[in-house]
Amino acid sequence: MRPSGRKTDQMRDCSIETGVTRHAEGSCLIRMGDTHVLCTASIDERVPPFLKNSGLGWVTAEYGMLPRATHSRMRREAKNGQSGRTQEIQRLIGRSLRAGVDRVALGERQITVDCDVIQADGGTRCAAITGGWVALKLAVNKLMKAGVVTSDPLVDPVAAISCGIYAGQEVLDLDYPEDSEAGVDGNFIMTGGKLVEVQMSAEGATFTRGQMDTLLDLAGGGIADLNRIQTQAVT
Amino acid sequence: MRPSGRKTDQMRDCSIETGVTRHAEGSCLIRMGDTHVLCTASIDERVPPFLKNSGLGWVTAEYGMLPRATHSRMRREAKNGQSGRTQEIQRLIGRSLRAGVDRVALGERQITVDCDVIQADGGTRCAAITGGWVALKLAVNKLMKAGVVTSDPLVDPVAAISCGIYAGQEVLDLDYPEDSEAGVDGNFIMTGGKLVEVQMSAEGATFTRGQMDTLLDLAGGGIADLNRIQTQAVT
Amino acid sequence: MRPSGRKTDQMRDCSIETGVTRHAEGSCLIRMGDTHVLCTASIDERVPPFLKNSGLGWVTAEYGMLPRATHSRMRREAKNGQSGRTQEIQRLIGRSLRAGVDRVALGERQITVDCDVIQADGGTRCAAITGGWVALKLAVNKLMKAGVVTSDPLVDPVAAISCGIYAGQEVLDLDYPEDSEAGVDGNFIMTGGKLVEVQMSAEGATFTRGQMDTLLDLAGGGIADLNRIQTQAVT
Amino acid sequence: MRPSGRKTDQMRDCSIETGVTRHAEGSCLIRMGDTHVLCTASIDERVPPFLKNSGLGWVTAEYGMLPRATHSRMRREAKNGQSGRTQEIQRLIGRSLRAGVDRVALGERQITVDCDVIQADGGTRCAAITGGWVALKLAVNKLMKAGVVTSDPLVDPVAAISCGIYAGQEVLDLDYPEDSEAGVDGNFIMTGGKLVEVQMSAEGATFTRGQMDTLLDLAGGGIADLNRIQTQAVT
Amino acid sequence: MRPSGRKTDQMRDCSIETGVTRHAEGSCLIRMGDTHVLCTASIDERVPPFLKNSGLGWVTAEYGMLPRATHSRMRREAKNGQSGRTQEIQRLIGRSLRAGVDRVALGERQITVDCDVIQADGGTRCAAITGGWVALKLAVNKLMKAGVVTSDPLVDPVAAISCGIYAGQEVLDLDYPEDSEAGVDGNFIMTGGKLVEVQMSAEGATFTRGQMDTLLDLAGGGIADLNRIQTQAVT
Amino acid sequence: MRPSGRKTDQMRDCSIETGVTRHAEGSCLIRMGDTHVLCTASIDERVPPFLKNSGLGWVTAEYGMLPRATHSRMRREAKNGQSGRTQEIQRLIGRSLRAGVDRVALGERQITVDCDVIQADGGTRCAAITGGWVALKLAVNKLMKAGVVTSDPLVDPVAAISCGIYAGQEVLDLDYPEDSEAGVDGNFIMTGGKLVEVQMSAEGATFTRGQMDTLLDLAGGGIADLNRIQTQAVT
Repeated sequence: MRPSGRKTDQMRDCSIETGVTRHAEGSCLIRMGDTHVLCTASIDERVPPFLKNSGLGWVTAEYGMLPRATHSRMRREAKNGQSGRTQEIQRLIGRSLRAGVDRVALGERQITVDCDVIQADGGTRCAAITGGWVALKLAVNKLMKAGVVTSDPLVDPVAAISCGIYAGQEVLDLDYPEDSEAGVDGNFIMTGGKLVEVQMSAEGATFTRGQMDTLLDLAGGGIADLNRIQTQAVT
Repeated sequence: MRPSGRKTDQMRDCSIETGVTRHAEGSCLIRMGDTHVLCTASIDERVPPFLKNSGLGWVTAEYGMLPRATHSRMRREAKNGQSGRTQEIQRLIGRSLRAGVDRVALGERQITVDCDVIQADGGTRCAAITGGWVALKLAVNKLMKAGVVTSDPLVDPVAAISCGIYAGQEVLDLDYPEDSEAGVDGNFIMTGGKLVEVQMSAEGATFTRGQMDTLLDLAGGGIADLNRIQTQAVT
Repeated sequence: MRPSGRKTDQMRDCSIETGVTRHAEGSCLIRMGDTHVLCTASIDERVPPFLKNSGLGWVTAEYGMLPRATHSRMRREAKNGQSGRTQEIQRLIGRSLRAGVDRVALGERQITVDCDVIQADGGTRCAAITGGWVALKLAVNKLMKAGVVTSDPLVDPVAAISCGIYAGQEVLDLDYPEDSEAGVDGNFIMTGGKLVEVQMSAEGATFTRGQMDTLLDLAGGGIADLNRIQTQAVT
Repeated sequence: MRPSGRKTDQMRDCSIETGVTRHAEGSCLIRMGDTHVLCTASIDERVPPFLKNSGLGWVTAEYGMLPRATHSRMRREAKNGQSGRTQEIQRLIGRSLRAGVDRVALGERQITVDCDVIQADGGTRCAAITGGWVALKLAVNKLMKAGVVTSDPLVDPVAAISCGIYAGQEVLDLDYPEDSEAGVDGNFIMTGGKLVEVQMSAEGATFTRGQMDTLLDLAGGGIADLNRIQTQAVT
Repeated sequence: MRPSGRKTDQMRDCSIETGVTRHAEGSCLIRMGDTHVLCTASIDERVPPFLKNSGLGWVTAEYGMLPRATHSRMRREAKNGQSGRTQEIQRLIGRSLRAGVDRVALGERQITVDCDVIQADGGTRCAAITGGWVALKLAVNKLMKAGVVTSDPLVDPVAAISCGIYAGQEVLDLDYPEDSEAGVDGNFIMTGGKLVEVQMSAEGATFTRGQMDTLLDLAGGGIADLNRIQTQAVT
Repeated sequence: MRPSGRKTDQMRDCSIETGVTRHAEGSCLIRMGDTHVLCTASIDERVPPFLKNSGLGWVTAEYGMLPRATHSRMRREAKNGQSGRTQEIQRLIGRSLRAGVDRVALGERQITVDCDVIQADGGTRCAAITGGWVALKLAVNKLMKAGVVTSDPLVDPVAAISCGIYAGQEVLDLDYPEDSEAGVDGNFIMTGGKLVEVQMSAEGATFTRGQMDTLLDLAGGGIADLNRIQTQAVT
């Protein structure tokens, strides 16, 4: 039995509210249960040095957490520098979003997706990817409306969901009480029905090929649902 | 004529929404026009080393801005460390809030007030102080309800407002278009009808004693209004 | 056809030379083709603060690369701080090794495994895990010989191998020329026939469930071979 | 009664010795009682990037304290980085000095004013501004003598003085014993009889409009005296 | 011919003014020609952790340079951290001073000697050692007068002088114009007629055993003179 | 009697193995007894900014130590930044190597010599210089073979050896047990029979001119032997 009473293949309620800040070219607030992440996309007409005069665009991401997004207050990263965990997460978000971008169609410009966790209850990096894609798409829509980009560089939505083994059972979309107990958990990122990233990790535990297969099945189902919510949000 | 069409002594619409995050002991989202600041108060039963066994409590503050809270994206402070400006602001917030705290009544514990700017349109430090006091008060109320604190350490609200000289005219509560043009501007913090801090500053300009008096008058009026909104929010 | 002429399921020659430094409690030099990693294990009778008086041991890892381990010289991390990539790798090594450790049997002490890449040709993090386990095992053997540890905390070897999709083909153990071309690649860590970590990642590409299955099969075969070489090295 | 026996409106003895180092374009040692600050002005023909080709000059300031300028030794900032307090002070000094500079007349060049506290007894930032202006003026005089600058960019001297409420009484120019006891104190910067900055601050206290007026009066008197000493020093 | 017209074995005029700051337990301003260094000694009754309960004292040193002590302004180290050169110099000063200290007689306390260069014209590290010893001695005298230390831990003065090969000639006490031209130069530290440190260094040049001998002779003469000036200063 | 049983003028066994990594333009592993240092030379066709268009080449060095090169594990410098000691050593290595380089003959390019200590038993900086010269020479030979450099910029080998006073006796080439006991020790660097650097240092001790002479004699003998081994290694 899951602490929340959810079924093993049941995702938390997910909502995506767009246009939440007036300055960003694209923005949304994604809520996966009690995990709330504010995502903004900022367009910059300059690309990083390694792409100058390449004709290719770039998408990058940054991730942060407000100090009291969590049960007990965490130290502010602006005072101590980004932790290894934070850097690992923002590299993952950027890589995942780029998997769904046609960088030729985007043209030589950079879009930075900022994902800031307002409230955390597990699965923040997955919510950041799912919401980050929505912010990115809204910014791209603005470029297309302005005629600056003519062919849509974002065909299929990119979404992410966590799965893990909680109390011996494979479950979809772990919340914090599950996440802190699970010996095995992972993040699955997909686009257009295909995999982009798989990160299964165990702390002091192991898992079988069979369990791996079940988790991949659960993830596939959850991501299909997320794609529907994303599509609705951007139209 | 002010860009917003406001009168010289007219504050922007101010609203304070409380209970906006589930983990913090006190929280609110303050909106001063298009300036939105999320304030949380976190109670820690330990005090800083210099107060150990003193019987005195402590209130401190930290300030941050999401990278795309502003018109153009700013670099994330977690990547570069806090700027001098950020440190100056958070020292001001902490000092201002402490002016309204009876540290004996609070008892030997620390409350950290985090003020994170979600959207900026001028006057973020003042909104942070005004909203920060509300978050602080809600956390203290929780301590009083639990019987841990028996005498209220927060009698009068602490609030802050900016004033400045825009187009030769003394005005209340500058928004970003005014702030970026004004040669003279300042922040006034008050509690219980008395002054706590006055920070008048000029970039390449000067001001007279008479102008100083007018600004102090404007500030007094604005803060009285803010105090009413604060009191409503915490009851 | 692979640049090295290897078959798709053919690992590079792997050798593990033990006892290569006189100070470390356990050490080895692992060679996976032209990738050479020096691994040392250092015993510390103190554990990190969060484990004090827990009775539990700890295994952690650090990773580095000599500046000219690579084709062109990299900046020395001691001058610039550890990159996000380095931190991500050393967190992975530590987590992977801990999956094969009985921390009660180890007792309240810490073993730090240092993995320093002397020469790089792809797959350095996998070689670090495989060699790191050997260094760790040798250090633990010393503790057991001294009677300080009585029940072996390391039952099955932990090993790692990379797999990826090169030129449309699933291949085992990518070397640098393959790694720099492959759009999809990943690292598989196993112990006792079970999975510990799976990290599939795509840069601007995607992969199917079927390809995922093939890569898992390849990895399983490679790791069984590595386990034999590890077992030989420590006896 | 003040610890020093001074009257409430009595400033400490102030002297300004010019030409104290042989390399700087302008330099002085200002003594406000036992507070001694060495000020140097360094001319750089390059301006910061944001002023390139603007025709405008720039004046900036840096502030430091020798580790044993104070009663007990402080940690050296070169080992730990500049504190928030130090950054706040040097931003204030730079802003204050710029208020008295005609940046068109100065021409496209930068002058850096370094203020290093040799011995501290309260009021170091005010002494730094008053002495900093003298060093700046001497450097500008050199530019005018050389015919590089033709119209004097520094018409009126900029000076600063602290005031505060000590033992319930408004007093001018607090020394360290007063400063460490005063609940309310502030810094007033003026030029040509007008205000440039006002920084009133209270630690756990408040003050009335009437007290504010008295402090402004005291400051005005002190600054007039300082202006006379500055003028004498530079002629 | 030397730029200053001095003979090859002629030191610059050296003066040592004591008691120059009111807070430090010992202080002096040493002038070696145009090189001026302010030295203070601060007593701390706590020793570094590695000496706790050892009964032994410690002497350490820190070195700094005001930004405009030099011909052209240098970047402030508080903004950028101490350079390798600065760290090397302060390690040398501390090591040299300790050579003349009876650490048992000093007792379990630490004295920190701060050497801050006010004006530089070559030979700053040597002046810092020579003046640093005077500040140290004055602080120790205070401890002896108070009866806290009963047997003098500083028997012979420690002094330092630079020598080098300028225009093919061995010369004593290089000033900046000589130092910036000399291919070979070095620092000699002595106490009680014996050597403590010898640091001969060549940038793109070499020197013979014979030249080494001449430089050692020159240094011996200069240091004898410095010892007389030191002794006079502390009595 | 020396702990190793060596005579006072007896160097440890020294061997230099070249071509130890496949990427570097020059490389060797130098073994001085149990001190093992891996040296690589990397050619960069760009020079530092201060040499642009000067026609002059540059040689620089970096030094590191693997965390478990020593008896007990040291903290990894990549996590904490380079210590003052490390910076001091790598500045010495670079300066020493440059003393033997004809920078006009080298031409406008930079060679970086990395010296990484794999195992430490005293004298690591001397081994780094001696081995570093061999790596540098091999890289230069490659440039000459390619016809890019036509006149050999490295005529005489640069080598280094430590000497010190152990148990009252002047000895050559201190190993760690001697080095940790010796109150006086130093490093001597020579090329072509002439001195390049002399660094005699005493921790809480002193030495006479006579002892200095004996140490210089010992060093001269040792370096002649090292030069023979270097010459053999590069031919």
